[in-house]
Amino acid sequence: MKVGFIGLGVMGSAMASNLVAAGHHVTVWNRSEAAVQKLESLGAKAARTPDRAAQGEVLHSMLANDQAVREVFLDGGVLDAMDPGTTHVNHATISVALARQLAEEHARRGLGYVAAPVFGRPDVAAAGKLHMLVAGSASLIEKARPLLEAMAARLWPMGASPERANVVKLAGNFMIVSAIESLAEASVLARAHGVEAADFIEMMTGTLFAAPVYQIYGKAIAEQRFTPPGFELSLGLKDVMLAQDAARAERVPMPLAGVLRESLLEALADGAEGMDLAALALVSARRANLDRRA
Amino acid sequence: MKVGFIGLGVMGSAMASNLVAAGHHVTVWNRSEAAVQKLESLGAKAARTPDRAAQGEVLHSMLANDQAVREVFLDGGVLDAMDPGTTHVNHATISVALARQLAEEHARRGLGYVAAPVFGRPDVAAAGKLHMLVAGSASLIEKARPLLEAMAARLWPMGASPERANVVKLAGNFMIVSAIESLAEASVLARAHGVEAADFIEMMTGTLFAAPVYQIYGKAIAEQRFTPPGFELSLGLKDVMLAQDAARAERVPMPLAGVLRESLLEALADGAEGMDLAALALVSARRANLDRRA
Amino acid sequence: MKVGFIGLGVMGSAMASNLVAAGHHVTVWNRSEAAVQKLESLGAKAARTPDRAAQGEVLHSMLANDQAVREVFLDGGVLDAMDPGTTHVNHATISVALARQLAEEHARRGLGYVAAPVFGRPDVAAAGKLHMLVAGSASLIEKARPLLEAMAARLWPMGASPERANVVKLAGNFMIVSAIESLAEASVLARAHGVEAADFIEMMTGTLFAAPVYQIYGKAIAEQRFTPPGFELSLGLKDVMLAQDAARAERVPMPLAGVLRESLLEALADGAEGMDLAALALVSARRANLDRRA
Amino acid sequence: MKVGFIGLGVMGSAMASNLVAAGHHVTVWNRSEAAVQKLESLGAKAARTPDRAAQGEVLHSMLANDQAVREVFLDGGVLDAMDPGTTHVNHATISVALARQLAEEHARRGLGYVAAPVFGRPDVAAAGKLHMLVAGSASLIEKARPLLEAMAARLWPMGASPERANVVKLAGNFMIVSAIESLAEASVLARAHGVEAADFIEMMTGTLFAAPVYQIYGKAIAEQRFTPPGFELSLGLKDVMLAQDAARAERVPMPLAGVLRESLLEALADGAEGMDLAALALVSARRANLDRRA
Repeated sequence: MKVGFIGLGVMGSAMASNLVAAGHHVTVWNRSEAAVQKLESLGAKAARTPDRAAQGEVLHSMLANDQAVREVFLDGGVLDAMDPGTTHVNHATISVALARQLAEEHARRGLGYVAAPVFGRPDVAAAGKLHMLVAGSASLIEKARPLLEAMAARLWPMGASPERANVVKLAGNFMIVSAIESLAEASVLARAHGVEAADFIEMMTGTLFAAPVYQIYGKAIAEQRFTPPGFELSLGLKDVMLAQDAARAERVPMPLAGVLRESLLEALADGAEGMDLAALALVSARRANLDRRA
Repeated sequence: MKVGFIGLGVMGSAMASNLVAAGHHVTVWNRSEAAVQKLESLGAKAARTPDRAAQGEVLHSMLANDQAVREVFLDGGVLDAMDPGTTHVNHATISVALARQLAEEHARRGLGYVAAPVFGRPDVAAAGKLHMLVAGSASLIEKARPLLEAMAARLWPMGASPERANVVKLAGNFMIVSAIESLAEASVLARAHGVEAADFIEMMTGTLFAAPVYQIYGKAIAEQRFTPPGFELSLGLKDVMLAQDAARAERVPMPLAGVLRESLLEALADGAEGMDLAALALVSARRANLDRRA
Repeated sequence: MKVGFIGLGVMGSAMASNLVAAGHHVTVWNRSEAAVQKLESLGAKAARTPDRAAQGEVLHSMLANDQAVREVFLDGGVLDAMDPGTTHVNHATISVALARQLAEEHARRGLGYVAAPVFGRPDVAAAGKLHMLVAGSASLIEKARPLLEAMAARLWPMGASPERANVVKLAGNFMIVSAIESLAEASVLARAHGVEAADFIEMMTGTLFAAPVYQIYGKAIAEQRFTPPGFELSLGLKDVMLAQDAARAERVPMPLAGVLRESLLEALADGAEGMDLAALALVSARRANLDRRA
Repeated sequence: MKVGFIGLGVMGSAMASNLVAAGHHVTVWNRSEAAVQKLESLGAKAARTPDRAAQGEVLHSMLANDQAVREVFLDGGVLDAMDPGTTHVNHATISVALARQLAEEHARRGLGYVAAPVFGRPDVAAAGKLHMLVAGSASLIEKARPLLEAMAARLWPMGASPERANVVKLAGNFMIVSAIESLAEASVLARAHGVEAADFIEMMTGTLFAAPVYQIYGKAIAEQRFTPPGFELSLGLKDVMLAQDAARAERVPMPLAGVLRESLLEALADGAEGMDLAALALVSARRANLDRRA
């Protein structure tokens, strides 16, 4: 299929590569050039401007946040430039409010819109094994299915309203941060009583919590290895706050989310900028003054 | 081996049965008779008093809480009645403070003491597949190994200080309750935006959170099925509070534990007595007034 | 002095009345007409459009929130219509981010800008006894002083950067909500043990907590009287969230603010729309299921 | 009147002095000698053992915590030594559970029991201006009234069940700690935006929060003066935990109490042992990394 792809960060590059590898004709655009060249070397075509990437049957985008999506699609005019009949598949983790607005803006212009945020760190994206939420009209999803399946281990349909996929994505990221905070607090409790964090974490993530999230972040905590980030802590804060925004809109109290927000802020106040979410463990340890004890 | 077993609740009965099935000579005692008869029918011997169950090489106990352990072993005189050389393997989930006291009381009397709390719900105990933490002197653990392995999928050594196994058990239960609260809050966020809890939970527990804890409690939440309890909510509160006690003793702040305590209390205030830990989901839903919305 | 006044809600009307009463020539504008007529009857002049109210030496404004301020002053063009040399005194409780932006927008146009948010409920405003924070250039404040003193019991200077007055206002409102939540939780604890809320509150607010905030909200809680609102609960949530925004901008963890946000959301989910902040007491009571106990 | 007084800490000494000064015949006992001598020099009689102090019409006690009360009155046998007809007025801040037990133990022995915990720091006690909660049988309180009024600015009756006075005392101390945490968080928010803590605190405690609690602790926070303690932080933690215990007994969720507990623990982990409650401000500042910023 002839498709466009806007946004070639670590995740976007891996996803676009899989589209190329699956034989699709992919035209890419990215704010900075370096990522574009890499995709060209794999067989993609480079677009000078984002609207030129928007001329295929399907336009994928994987931008960093609400602001980037607004700048490119609304303020930057890409939506106005798209041909009616083109479907935009938005993989970004964005606010529920923006998701709703985008659905309306596309509909008003006769453009198809599918929300397809993904779970998976960069290595999973590179392997084409993402778990992809999809929400939008069934026929549009059907049309895009070969593309989506080139990037994903599995598609998880969430109904016809695009913003539902975004809510699920935010709720999932909230659960990820909860899991890390829980692991961090529990590890410090164990350490304060003389149990090695590594022993504790090996036990927990080998039994009741034998799930990818716990294993990946548990390993990082046990090894006190917080860079390079797989999931940047500052993005984790952004997502928790988006979950809180979505919760407020529907008046859903989430006390755990409140705690996570403060812990993440505390991490950033203490120098975790650029670190992985696992650096929440540093906050727990500092609160207990663990590293300064005799 | 000739062993005793004190405490035949749902978990204790299943564990003692596996000792009998493995060919050991097991003398059992329990406060109420009914559970004793069931074990007798499987081949165990009944003791009239707890100290008579304490006359083998190893005495196992699986009592409900600190109070029951104190009543039987300290106030009830079982420790005083035990022969020097006997080893007591305590499987109960108890406070770190009592664990320390018990280690001293055993040592003073020349008795062996091993802490061996377990992870696993009753069906897992019946299958002899528990995950068993063990802490105490290596030679005592070696001696008891055939017994422990008759009940467990795997032993997880936590060093020579018995209370460390108890800390890990409490830290683990704290993580379990955290996971449920997180799942409960996330599900309500999804539901408030029109996503079925079952769809959300299937997705999360089939991917990033594909671990027993999430799958078991997630299913209960999706089906709104909170009785009969696999892990009673009131016991979950007890364990979170024991984790807080252990944290306080070493001055370890655990903000997540603070939130869990309040949510569990709220569940009990609202009628969750006798329900499973999964009933935390009722609290999240009530906070958002979800069931009363049009 | 010849002054303008934009925004005649309950607070704004009371404040503008005091300017009229002090002998100033006040031209007023308000979105809806009713409030304007009341001020005209007191001697004020009505402006057809907001920019016509902006033609005196000083322009006061008391609008409800960020959105209203943006609509009138930025999108609505009032700033562009003001004469250089005019000083705008903004009494609204707005975000720190908007406060910074407004300072820049005024400076760029050669307009004076003073932030002067106030503490005090409507009856205090009517009596001209507000406590008024003031921040901005000293000479501008000096010029406006007779006006400000016509409305305030006292001016509290907070330096030359206007946004500092707004930070203090938000920090103060956060403290007010904290005080109410604390009073609400404490009262329910007392009630659950058989102490009348009124007895408890009379004692506390007559001794250690003999301050206006505790006395006003304590009385409302003791009498379970939550309408009409003196300080609307939904505005309290807005302000706590603005405090959180200001905290995030500087990476200041505020765990108490996190708890307040969830309690306020829970109040709104349960029907406290239109009620006073004191209705936080309903949430505490419901959590403990107090009213449904035998 | 002929009275006894057990417990001559800073508060007890001041209270007993006022009884002496009012002309009563006071026999005192204290674990350590130094405090006894000071009271003797004022005119009190020293008792060699606590039961000898228990031989007047009324026995006052002001001990540090549950453990001290248990050791002296229950395990130490003072209750058994008291003459029927003597009334014990217990001024200590103790748990609700112990308060209930003491009421029973006194009743069983035909002894009168009045709970009379106090609000006020040592200087207030010395001035005889305490606010004193009183609960117990009306006739016993009437009998003791001249004694109580020699120590208090005012008596606050809380009914016939002694433990109610203790609940109110704990609820009040919870409110004190809440107020300090709120002031601490708000001050750091202000400081992070360039407002001096002293300016912020002067404003707040001179207006809406013009109450003793805010003024006393606010001054300490503004001056960063945390020793010597007026109300030791570690005792504040003890009281918050007693409030939590009382809340749990009646299933009253108190999310604010949960936050306070963690903040107090964090303070102690970071070296606030021996400091005043106002040292909560150090925790807030550290979380925001305020002192390490450029």
